[in-house]
Amino acid sequence: MKTDIEISQEVDLLPIKNIAESVGLAEEHLELFGNYKAKLSFSAIKELEDRSEGKLILVTSINPTPAGEGKSTVTIGLGDALNKIGKKTVIALREPSLGPVMGIKGGATGGGYAQVLPMEDINLHFTGDMHAITTANNALSALLDNHIQQGNELNIDSRRVIWKRVVDLNDRELRQVVVGLGGAIQGVPREDGFDITVASEIMAILCLATDLENLKARLANIVVGYTFTLEPVTVSDLGVQGALALLLKEAIKPNLVQTIYGTAALVHGGPFANIAHGCNSILATKAALKLGDYVVTEAGFGADLGGEKFLDIKVPNLKKAPDAVVIVATIRALKMHGGVSKNELGKENISALVEGFSNLHKHVENMQSYGLPVVVAINQFISDSENEISTLKELCERINVPVELTSVWENGAEGGEELAKTVLQVIEEETANFRTIYQSGMNLEEKIEAIVTKIYGGNKVLFSKKAKNQLATFHKYGWDRLPICMAKTQYSLSDDPQQLGRPADFTITIRELVPKIGAGFIVALTGDVMTMPGLPKKPAALNMDIDSEGNAIGLF
Amino acid sequence: MKTDIEISQEVDLLPIKNIAESVGLAEEHLELFGNYKAKLSFSAIKELEDRSEGKLILVTSINPTPAGEGKSTVTIGLGDALNKIGKKTVIALREPSLGPVMGIKGGATGGGYAQVLPMEDINLHFTGDMHAITTANNALSALLDNHIQQGNELNIDSRRVIWKRVVDLNDRELRQVVVGLGGAIQGVPREDGFDITVASEIMAILCLATDLENLKARLANIVVGYTFTLEPVTVSDLGVQGALALLLKEAIKPNLVQTIYGTAALVHGGPFANIAHGCNSILATKAALKLGDYVVTEAGFGADLGGEKFLDIKVPNLKKAPDAVVIVATIRALKMHGGVSKNELGKENISALVEGFSNLHKHVENMQSYGLPVVVAINQFISDSENEISTLKELCERINVPVELTSVWENGAEGGEELAKTVLQVIEEETANFRTIYQSGMNLEEKIEAIVTKIYGGNKVLFSKKAKNQLATFHKYGWDRLPICMAKTQYSLSDDPQQLGRPADFTITIRELVPKIGAGFIVALTGDVMTMPGLPKKPAALNMDIDSEGNAIGLF
Repeated sequence: MKTDIEISQEVDLLPIKNIAESVGLAEEHLELFGNYKAKLSFSAIKELEDRSEGKLILVTSINPTPAGEGKSTVTIGLGDALNKIGKKTVIALREPSLGPVMGIKGGATGGGYAQVLPMEDINLHFTGDMHAITTANNALSALLDNHIQQGNELNIDSRRVIWKRVVDLNDRELRQVVVGLGGAIQGVPREDGFDITVASEIMAILCLATDLENLKARLANIVVGYTFTLEPVTVSDLGVQGALALLLKEAIKPNLVQTIYGTAALVHGGPFANIAHGCNSILATKAALKLGDYVVTEAGFGADLGGEKFLDIKVPNLKKAPDAVVIVATIRALKMHGGVSKNELGKENISALVEGFSNLHKHVENMQSYGLPVVVAINQFISDSENEISTLKELCERINVPVELTSVWENGAEGGEELAKTVLQVIEEETANFRTIYQSGMNLEEKIEAIVTKIYGGNKVLFSKKAKNQLATFHKYGWDRLPICMAKTQYSLSDDPQQLGRPADFTITIRELVPKIGAGFIVALTGDVMTMPGLPKKPAALNMDIDSEGNAIGLF
Repeated sequence: MKTDIEISQEVDLLPIKNIAESVGLAEEHLELFGNYKAKLSFSAIKELEDRSEGKLILVTSINPTPAGEGKSTVTIGLGDALNKIGKKTVIALREPSLGPVMGIKGGATGGGYAQVLPMEDINLHFTGDMHAITTANNALSALLDNHIQQGNELNIDSRRVIWKRVVDLNDRELRQVVVGLGGAIQGVPREDGFDITVASEIMAILCLATDLENLKARLANIVVGYTFTLEPVTVSDLGVQGALALLLKEAIKPNLVQTIYGTAALVHGGPFANIAHGCNSILATKAALKLGDYVVTEAGFGADLGGEKFLDIKVPNLKKAPDAVVIVATIRALKMHGGVSKNELGKENISALVEGFSNLHKHVENMQSYGLPVVVAINQFISDSENEISTLKELCERINVPVELTSVWENGAEGGEELAKTVLQVIEEETANFRTIYQSGMNLEEKIEAIVTKIYGGNKVLFSKKAKNQLATFHKYGWDRLPICMAKTQYSLSDDPQQLGRPADFTITIRELVPKIGAGFIVALTGDVMTMPGLPKKPAALNMDIDSEGNAIGLF
C-alpha cells in the first residue's frame, strides 16, 4: 500500500493559476508562492464582494479515538466528489501546526486519494502564516515587557500579565517558566508561560477578522493584563496594534492550493478545537462561498468542540450558517466508544458498535438542535464487516438520519459520490433553520451551562473559586455579552478523556477563564486540558529526513 | 526629502524572472514568491556548478557610530554603478532580522537611491528563512528537553545543556529564564535563555553549508550539552538532524531580488557580526560568483568584526578570497571617532577628523595584512565641508590607499561610478595574496591572541577562570583546530564601546567560550556583549502601521 506522501508525489499538479481560473479568479489576483501555492490578494477579496454566495457544508465528527475518524480526508473527498458530479465546489480547511506534525501526526492534509497538495509544503512552513502569528504574538510580549521595564507608565502589575508567549511546537518544557532573571538590566522577573501558536488569541483574531480594519480593531482590543488598580490593559493602551497588523498583513490573505483531483482548496488559519475555536478563517470561508456554488469546510475534533464553536462563535461573525452538516464516523472508532481496545478492532463486534453508536447519536442530536439538516458519513475501512455496516446503517435509519458509506481514502472522488448526492438532496429538500445554542444576552455562567447541558449532556457545572471570582470581575468589565470558547478534551463529551460513548450524569469543572477580548470570546478551561501539548516518547521527528535532492522523507 | 519607503514605492519593479534572465538564469530555476522575489532552486544551484567565477569585492567599514556609515547603501550603490559602466555585477547581502527592524532601525535594505526591493517584504518576513531557522532551533530544544523528560537515555546533565532557544525579536526579558516548572509532568526544571535568531548556530550553519548533505552533517555535529560524565552530546546522538534539515530545506535556497536599478541581488542568511559570524550565505555568494563577472558583498559592522570573520571563517569554507576590499567611512563618523558629539557633527572640525582618521587607518592596515588590495569609500553627506573632504583624501594618500567619494544615497548608480572605476583599477593592477590572520594549527588561545593583537591592536588577552577551564576541556575534545568567532562590541576596536578612534594598550577579557561545532567555530564572548538585544524606550514598532489597502507605514 502506498503512503500518503508516495501518492502525493505521483500527482501531476496543475499550475495554481489554472486552479484559480477554474473558479473564476484571474491570475492578477494571485500572489504566487512557487507554481502550486498562492495567496489571494486584497484586490481579489474586494472583487469577490459583489458575487453571490454558494451553499455551505460543514463537516464534523464523533469524538475522535486513536482508531482515527478521517474527518479531513472525508471533507476533501466530498469536495472532489461534488466537483466530479458537476457541482462547482471549493474546499475550505485549516492549515496544520508544526507542533503535531513533528510530534505525533507527521502531517495533516488528508490521506490516501483525498489530499490537499503540495502536502510537504502545507505541512511544513506553507506560506508562513503560523510564523507571522508566532512573531506578532511574541512581539507583543516583548513590547509589553519592555514597557514595564522602561518606567511602566501604564502602571501594569507584572504579576497580572495574562498575555503569554507562543511557539508553534509541542514543548511542555515551556508551559510554566520564570522570565526576566539576571538583574535590573535584564527585565522584570515574573511568571510566564508559552502556549502553542494555534492557541494564540492572534490566531483566533486572524481567523475571525473580516478585513484589515477589523483585524486592527480586534488587535487593539486584546487585553494583555491588569494595572495595580485592576483595570484591564489593552494593546491600544500600548499603541502597538499598527505594528502587529503590519506583521500580519500577508498572513491574513487566504492560501489557495488544490486537491489530488484539482479541486480548489483554501487552506487558511489553524486554531485547534480543543483549546481554541477550531475553525479556518472567515476570509477564506467567505472567499470560498463567493468562488464555489458549494463549499465544504470542516471544524476541528468532534461536533462537541469544533462543531459547537463553528456554530456559536464563527457563524455570527461569518453571517452565514451551514446549509447542511456532515458527521463523520468510522465503525472502528464507534467500537472503541463501545469499549473495544485498539488492537481488537479487526474483529467484528456488533454489540460494541451498538453501544458506541450512542456517541454518534448524541452528536447527531446536537447538530440537529441548531436547526440544521444532518448527514452521517461512514468512512469505510477494510476491516469493517458487512454485518457491522448494515447494523450501523440501521441504527442511523432508526433515528431518521441519512447515512452514506464513503471510501475516498482508497477511491478518491468516486468513493464520495453517494455521500455527495445525499448531501445535495438534503440541502435541496430540507431547510436549515439556524439558531445558536445560547443567546448573547445570557451571562457567561448561563452560556457555559447551556453548552454543558445541551451539547455535552452533563448535568452540572462546577466553577472553581478562581473562576467564580473571574465571573464577577468579567461581569463588571462588561464581558458577559461575549460567547464562550470551551477548552476541553477532544476524546470525550465530558471533561474526562476516559469517558467514551455517551457519558451521563457528569459534572464539568471550570478551573479558570481567559478573556480573549480581541478575538471576542471568553475561554473556559475545563479538566486538565493544556494549551501547550508535549511530545511523545518517540516523536515523528525521529523519522524525518530529506534526500540529497531536497525531497521530504517521513511526512505522512 | 523623500523617505526610503517613499522612494521604494515609486519604483516600477521588473518581474524577478527578467532579473534572473539578465544574469543568465532561466525561469524554470526560480521558485517565485510573488512577482518580485524568488528562491533559486536546487536545480539552479546544480546547473551553475560548472560556470566560471567572477571577481569578489568585499565591502566593510570603520567601527560604526550613531552618525551612521551607510555600508549596505554603498554596497548596493557600488553594484549598481558597476552595472552602469558595463560590468555584469551581482550583489550578495544578508537578510534583515525583525529584532532591530521592530526595535531601532525600522529597516535594513540600504537607503535613498541605493536600496534592494521590495523593501517592505525583505524587512518583514521575506521568504521565511528566519522563521524556519527559529523553528529548527526551537524544535531541537523541544526534542532535547523531551529526551531528558522521557527517561534521558543519553544521560544528559540538564544543568549542562548549552543549546538555547531563540526568537527573532529584541526581547531582554528572555535572556535568562527558568523552564520546566509546574511539577513532574511539565518537564525538568532548569536554567535556560533565549538568543536572538541571528545568533543561533543554525543560522551560522545555514550560512556556511555548501549543500544539503553538508547542511545535515553540520547539524548532526551540533553539541547541545554534556552528559553527567562530561561527554559532549550531539544532535546525531539525539537522531534529529534529518528533521532539522527538513525544516530548513527551503530556507537554504538563496533569495533573488533586485535593486532600484534592476541589479540582481542575492539576499540570504543574516548572522549579526558582533555576536555571530556576520556574513551572508556561502550558497548565495557562490551563486552570485557564478552569475556575475563581479560580485559585491558586505560583512556586518566594522572590519574588526564582519571583515575579520569573512576572511578567517567564511573564506576557508567558500574557497575563494576577495579580489578587493572596500572600507566605507563617513566624515561625520570619523569626527565622532575624533571626539565630536552627535549634535556637533554639522560643524567643520578638521582636527577631530584627523584624530578620528586613526580608526580608518587601523582598518586599512588590518585588511592589507590579509594580503588584499584596499580602497576607501567616503560616503558623502551634505554637511561635509570641502576642507574636510580634501583633508581626508590627503590623509588616505599619505598612507597610500586609493580613496573615492560616493553619493549613491542621493544619486544612485551615478553617485558610485568613480568608486566603481577605482575598484576595477585596483583589481586589475594589484594582485591579492590572501592569507588568514592565524593558522588552523594554532590552539584556541593563540588564535584569540592573534585576533586581539593583530586586528584589534590590543596588547593582552585575559581569560576568566571559566574560559581557562573551557580552553583545557575544549583542547581535550579536539576542538583546538577550529577558528574563533569573536563576540565583541561593534563600536570600538576594544571590548569597551566607549573607546573610539584607535585605542592602544588595552586588554581584552574573554569571559566565556561557546562551542559551535556544527558551524565549525568557537565563539569567544568579550566584555558585556549580549546575544539577545533589548528594545529602546520608544521602539520603532510604535510608529508602524498599515493602511486599509495593506501598505506598510513606518518602515524606513
